[in-house]
Amino acid sequence: MIKTVLLMLTALLTATPAGAEPPPASPNGIIQPEGYQNWRLISVSQRTESQTLRAILGNSVAVEAARAGKTNPWPNGTILAKVNLKQKNSETFPTAIVPSELIHVDFMIKDDSRYASTNGWGWARWMGQERKPYGQDANFSQECIACHSAVKGQDMVFTKPVILP
Amino acid sequence: MIKTVLLMLTALLTATPAGAEPPPASPNGIIQPEGYQNWRLISVSQRTESQTLRAILGNSVAVEAARAGKTNPWPNGTILAKVNLKQKNSETFPTAIVPSELIHVDFMIKDDSRYASTNGWGWARWMGQERKPYGQDANFSQECIACHSAVKGQDMVFTKPVILP
Repeated sequence: MIKTVLLMLTALLTATPAGAEPPPASPNGIIQPEGYQNWRLISVSQRTESQTLRAILGNSVAVEAARAGKTNPWPNGTILAKVNLKQKNSETFPTAIVPSELIHVDFMIKDDSRYASTNGWGWARWMGQERKPYGQDANFSQECIACHSAVKGQDMVFTKPVILP
Repeated sequence: MIKTVLLMLTALLTATPAGAEPPPASPNGIIQPEGYQNWRLISVSQRTESQTLRAILGNSVAVEAARAGKTNPWPNGTILAKVNLKQKNSETFPTAIVPSELIHVDFMIKDDSRYASTNGWGWARWMGQERKPYGQDANFSQECIACHSAVKGQDMVFTKPVILP
């Protein structure tokens, strides 16, 4: 355990590029959560209609909630990141599907008072490697909510966490 | 950054179940790497013939190598974990594929002197939530190698890391 902590500390202190700038804020004022690239796995998925593979990562609050099975509702402080990757056929394994380019990274930030007007979540998306904020103005959240309302009964989150043994 | 480190420390110190026992060793003597559940994302994939979704995680050595683009060869100390999950149709999103049960978790441990006889990697797999070691005896590694030899030119690793912006 101590060794693991030391390894993770070392990684954190060395893996962030010096001087890396955060991307511009989302039109609803949300700043991209720092260090999401180091978050832990919540689940994976595929969307057949868009031919995309996805990795869902969570901050520490999210991971603890997932492991405790306390995700309906997710606790305040939860942040989920969904990494959306265009898929392609593997060049080295005939029946494998693998990522090609990154399309966008989406965030859901739980704070039921701050984000009361958007179903308890702050919504944000940054496009591509250039991390361009998504949306013309703050109303873009309504697009997110329109789709996620299908899972209003599970706190607006489609993802069911995978628990690793 | 400090906040992130503190959050991760807190998570590490609280998220590991008290008294969790490691599973039995692999028949080739490999012990399951501690804390792999907290490792960071390397990539995701799907296998159409087995209808499985996969998450590939890496220890700190692996993640640093991936981010530096130094993965051919991967450095000694690299450990890659591949989480294999049976797939199913989402119950809440018609065109989404999501994980059902966990089938096995596979590890590749790079040490080109210790594992010289098995192409520089130690190979191990634990089956299901019960974490049963895979293989009748140490020769099971030959099964892994037979398949991974297709990517001998990329240090026996199929996965190309995803770099998150």
